[in-house]
Amino acid sequence: MSSSPTAPADLDRTDPAGAVAAAAARVSNWGRWGPDDVRGTMNFLGPEQRRAAAALVRTGESFSLSQSFDMDGPQKGWRRRTNPVHTMLDTGTDAVAGVQGFPHGIGGADDVISMPLQCSTQWDGLGHIFDHGVAWNGRPADQVVTSLGDGVTGIETVADVVCGRGVLLDVGRAIGDDGELPDGFAITEEHLRHTIEAQGPSSVVRRGDLVMVRTGRLARARREGWGEYAGGDSPGLSFTTADWLHGSEIAAVATDTWGFEVRPNEFDVAFQPLHQVAIPHIGLFLGEMWDLDALADACAADGRWEVFLTAAPLRITGAVGSPVNPVAVR
Amino acid sequence: MSSSPTAPADLDRTDPAGAVAAAAARVSNWGRWGPDDVRGTMNFLGPEQRRAAAALVRTGESFSLSQSFDMDGPQKGWRRRTNPVHTMLDTGTDAVAGVQGFPHGIGGADDVISMPLQCSTQWDGLGHIFDHGVAWNGRPADQVVTSLGDGVTGIETVADVVCGRGVLLDVGRAIGDDGELPDGFAITEEHLRHTIEAQGPSSVVRRGDLVMVRTGRLARARREGWGEYAGGDSPGLSFTTADWLHGSEIAAVATDTWGFEVRPNEFDVAFQPLHQVAIPHIGLFLGEMWDLDALADACAADGRWEVFLTAAPLRITGAVGSPVNPVAVR
Amino acid sequence: MSSSPTAPADLDRTDPAGAVAAAAARVSNWGRWGPDDVRGTMNFLGPEQRRAAAALVRTGESFSLSQSFDMDGPQKGWRRRTNPVHTMLDTGTDAVAGVQGFPHGIGGADDVISMPLQCSTQWDGLGHIFDHGVAWNGRPADQVVTSLGDGVTGIETVADVVCGRGVLLDVGRAIGDDGELPDGFAITEEHLRHTIEAQGPSSVVRRGDLVMVRTGRLARARREGWGEYAGGDSPGLSFTTADWLHGSEIAAVATDTWGFEVRPNEFDVAFQPLHQVAIPHIGLFLGEMWDLDALADACAADGRWEVFLTAAPLRITGAVGSPVNPVAVR
Amino acid sequence: MSSSPTAPADLDRTDPAGAVAAAAARVSNWGRWGPDDVRGTMNFLGPEQRRAAAALVRTGESFSLSQSFDMDGPQKGWRRRTNPVHTMLDTGTDAVAGVQGFPHGIGGADDVISMPLQCSTQWDGLGHIFDHGVAWNGRPADQVVTSLGDGVTGIETVADVVCGRGVLLDVGRAIGDDGELPDGFAITEEHLRHTIEAQGPSSVVRRGDLVMVRTGRLARARREGWGEYAGGDSPGLSFTTADWLHGSEIAAVATDTWGFEVRPNEFDVAFQPLHQVAIPHIGLFLGEMWDLDALADACAADGRWEVFLTAAPLRITGAVGSPVNPVAVR
Repeated sequence: MSSSPTAPADLDRTDPAGAVAAAAARVSNWGRWGPDDVRGTMNFLGPEQRRAAAALVRTGESFSLSQSFDMDGPQKGWRRRTNPVHTMLDTGTDAVAGVQGFPHGIGGADDVISMPLQCSTQWDGLGHIFDHGVAWNGRPADQVVTSLGDGVTGIETVADVVCGRGVLLDVGRAIGDDGELPDGFAITEEHLRHTIEAQGPSSVVRRGDLVMVRTGRLARARREGWGEYAGGDSPGLSFTTADWLHGSEIAAVATDTWGFEVRPNEFDVAFQPLHQVAIPHIGLFLGEMWDLDALADACAADGRWEVFLTAAPLRITGAVGSPVNPVAVR
Repeated sequence: MSSSPTAPADLDRTDPAGAVAAAAARVSNWGRWGPDDVRGTMNFLGPEQRRAAAALVRTGESFSLSQSFDMDGPQKGWRRRTNPVHTMLDTGTDAVAGVQGFPHGIGGADDVISMPLQCSTQWDGLGHIFDHGVAWNGRPADQVVTSLGDGVTGIETVADVVCGRGVLLDVGRAIGDDGELPDGFAITEEHLRHTIEAQGPSSVVRRGDLVMVRTGRLARARREGWGEYAGGDSPGLSFTTADWLHGSEIAAVATDTWGFEVRPNEFDVAFQPLHQVAIPHIGLFLGEMWDLDALADACAADGRWEVFLTAAPLRITGAVGSPVNPVAVR
Repeated sequence: MSSSPTAPADLDRTDPAGAVAAAAARVSNWGRWGPDDVRGTMNFLGPEQRRAAAALVRTGESFSLSQSFDMDGPQKGWRRRTNPVHTMLDTGTDAVAGVQGFPHGIGGADDVISMPLQCSTQWDGLGHIFDHGVAWNGRPADQVVTSLGDGVTGIETVADVVCGRGVLLDVGRAIGDDGELPDGFAITEEHLRHTIEAQGPSSVVRRGDLVMVRTGRLARARREGWGEYAGGDSPGLSFTTADWLHGSEIAAVATDTWGFEVRPNEFDVAFQPLHQVAIPHIGLFLGEMWDLDALADACAADGRWEVFLTAAPLRITGAVGSPVNPVAVR
Repeated sequence: MSSSPTAPADLDRTDPAGAVAAAAARVSNWGRWGPDDVRGTMNFLGPEQRRAAAALVRTGESFSLSQSFDMDGPQKGWRRRTNPVHTMLDTGTDAVAGVQGFPHGIGGADDVISMPLQCSTQWDGLGHIFDHGVAWNGRPADQVVTSLGDGVTGIETVADVVCGRGVLLDVGRAIGDDGELPDGFAITEEHLRHTIEAQGPSSVVRRGDLVMVRTGRLARARREGWGEYAGGDSPGLSFTTADWLHGSEIAAVATDTWGFEVRPNEFDVAFQPLHQVAIPHIGLFLGEMWDLDALADACAADGRWEVFLTAAPLRITGAVGSPVNPVAVR
């Protein structure tokens, strides 16, 4: 199995705009669910898929796929993305000091958080990325996301949807050395197919699935320190997987990396070109910074790579992304 | 069926401290799961319960039980609890104006939130309430929750647990007028039993359940405006249900009210005395401000009151509570 | 002296846009300080004015003209303007509880604030208001203020300027009953002149002055409760004072009200039309929610209405406004 | 002139607690202004001092001594101290896009900030540091600063005071190479006296002064990048200056460094021992991260090192510190 981090032969590294336009033309889902659609590929995930997913549960073991939300995270301030600042409104020390003023011995602690919605484990919503000023389903971006938030495709529109069959594709384990792909490694459709084949039939991807792709990047950060985990080099999906992401009719895809797609990107001068196709054109939800390591170990142990996955975003009105604690049940 | 909002005969309205102490002595779970326990009643919810819960799924319909997180919420600033302030780091209007400086036509929107962790639909964690300076499992509160957060029982300790059988007890529908209990109505064990009986066998409560109690208070706020929804009068659980909450061995209980227990409280001068028993002594997780209305309608329609419920808190290190988007699948 | 709250005869209440356009044509300072200017009327305030202002100091008494910044403020959430949320990172209770982990007995407290920049006593910067999408000095607003802030006229551009002669015009005292003007009272140029005349020569307004207009609105709020102090009815400057604000060549004007101009505004359907002239066309800095009461009492006591005033905004890069603690020395 | 960065001979590097206790015994101001005092050394600065300071103004030139407040600052997250996060509630791009919904062509921009109060140029208030759980004037720290803030000595208590004579002691220029002291350089009383002598009579320090000590550390950070400006090695005041700080009866002292005192501290294992003496025992206000470079150049040019300085903290109720934009007028 070749695992070279070089870009596919059919990409012109000097023309990301052209590549985005061509891919967009091939994979667009605009209008597929009508002109008023606000849920994109989440339309693939309905009661039928969810019922089937529930039937996958065998042991009842559960796994949180969330990283921590605290000041020890990877954010370094790029575009004002900080780690979450969690402060207390009341504390146990106050309660013990007797300064809270409540009756009959009751004491309490309360807390506040200030955080970018994409500081740790998260969903990218449909209002997160635009292509030449156009958002999902062909809407002008300035009619969708203003300073008041996303008035059309805010993350709350899928608050009740994101629960169904999760399939874990552990590409790091199937292809990498010691379970990790190197930075700059572009995962192609061929790598995905190889992984599925290696893992066996439980990892066949179906319509409406919530696909999780493990690269091993988080395991490396955990071992070596954050470094440039947030925004730096990383393995990730190749730009060329746009067609697979579209054709597989999945509801969402999530990775254990900061940015889902390979970095450096596969063009000489570029910034997240696969996002530019996936979100506004496919209408695809992207999960980032998921922690897939413990689940991957469990799946590898018994060869079952499908789970009942609930990854409901917070119901933040108008949000273009959301922190999430995805829970997988096997 | 009597539905009088008067307090039970056996409560001395003048002695909340005495009542708390007596109840605590009866229902304490301290030491039940060892001296190092940090999960309290979530210990009742394990793989076995979760597997059985998954088997309850029939139609695959899903319901978000979360209220919105935005400035139109009920908070009025009491103890610095505000509604969530969601602001944008980048917008579609910026993208269209061409001021973002990204290559090949990609544009983006990002956002930030600043909010109390208990501003909308939420879990109370085990570090949220103390009794005379003592936290869950008998620990001194000042050794548990400092300005750095809850260093022992932070909500992250149950990040992977809160997924299992949800049972909805629609007391508002069973006992109230037009599906709503009046403010000040104290729901007793008798009312809970009556509701279970009225709803039928699917609502029998079992060990490890995530019990949801609907009062109709949110429906009233939705119709009449927030008013004093956050902190004011409300139906809710009677102080006398402490024994039922303990004896039923449930993992958690959630309501559609601000504060879970009846308000005004059932003592002359008091503040949330049932919290003071339930959290530090029973080790019980409390859900508040859940939106149970749509689920209740669905359950009433076919008489099935049990669901597969995932209500995973955000993995905020050291939090004493957490916003949550609970998702019920039927 | 007439003090009727009716609008001046020469305003067509049905045509605010026309009135704004006509006033803008009369009072525009565009280009006055060159095409690159970012300081507007602060150009009137230079070393000469500042030196003269310092010479006004007689007693050395100082007055803070700032309201408090805390949760007891007037904000109610309109357009996400909340009161400031101040939380602690460390506390004295923690220090006493011995949980801070510092050596040799040192303990500490730190704090954080989250607040709208215009939640309490503040300056409106030049990027705060636009007229038909055009900002100060004729710049397209979308080339000035994006989600990244005000990249051209951010408040930091006047960080070292706002220090000079302050003149207090206590219109409430000169014209009102018991020192207060009623809500809806439009202060005209005639009222200003009358006040100056009543107060005597120390209150003659000169080029480069920082003019403070006291209406008594804050005194009323302090006595009666906030009510609709933030955004509701109020006395304030009449739209017709645009010419005086321009012709007097003052550096800034500040009031003890939420919004500087009279509310309801003097048109049938309008929102802050004087702002629309004053900020983008005159280039005038507006101070709002200043507490002028104690200073006014001192000025009235000895008849000296001029002070050395320092009201430096925080140096927040790109801010369109700033909290401020103005200090007047007499 | 010796400028060795070694610690004074009379400090036992192994006993910071002993040194703190001994210094505290020598320099305590507890009770000096009565048992209820909340202003500490700001009591030295009254109308008389302020009037004299105003008389120092010659040219009327003004200098902002504030660093910027933005994401490009030095904070790295230590103890949750981040750089300030400034976001927009409304923008010019929104206004131009026509999405704001205001009448007659008015458009607007508003903003919000979330920041530690000590993230950039700031005052340490009297509630910032404790000695063995005791705060200024001998109060138990847990009776002063709780999660609700500093209920006794909050920074608002000096909101109207901090305006008087500023004296700049440019130790970097007088003693350092190229105007900068090296990291670890402990400025002693001898260095201060030498600087005053070198600068001439305008820099003689008097009772009630706001003393500014320039080390050149900020100039170095500006040239070389922040590095460990916030919390790392730095020149600063020697622990041994406690007696001078007390005996000189100054109202406050400010530096161009993160932490005012020399770092590493002059003991083997220590953290800011001079703070532990200066704040709770002397009752001294400390300014940190001030930008003194431009003012120093102006002072050096004409040999006048005294200014009329206004450095009023924001009136944040209960704050233990405050951002500030100090303005010096010459």
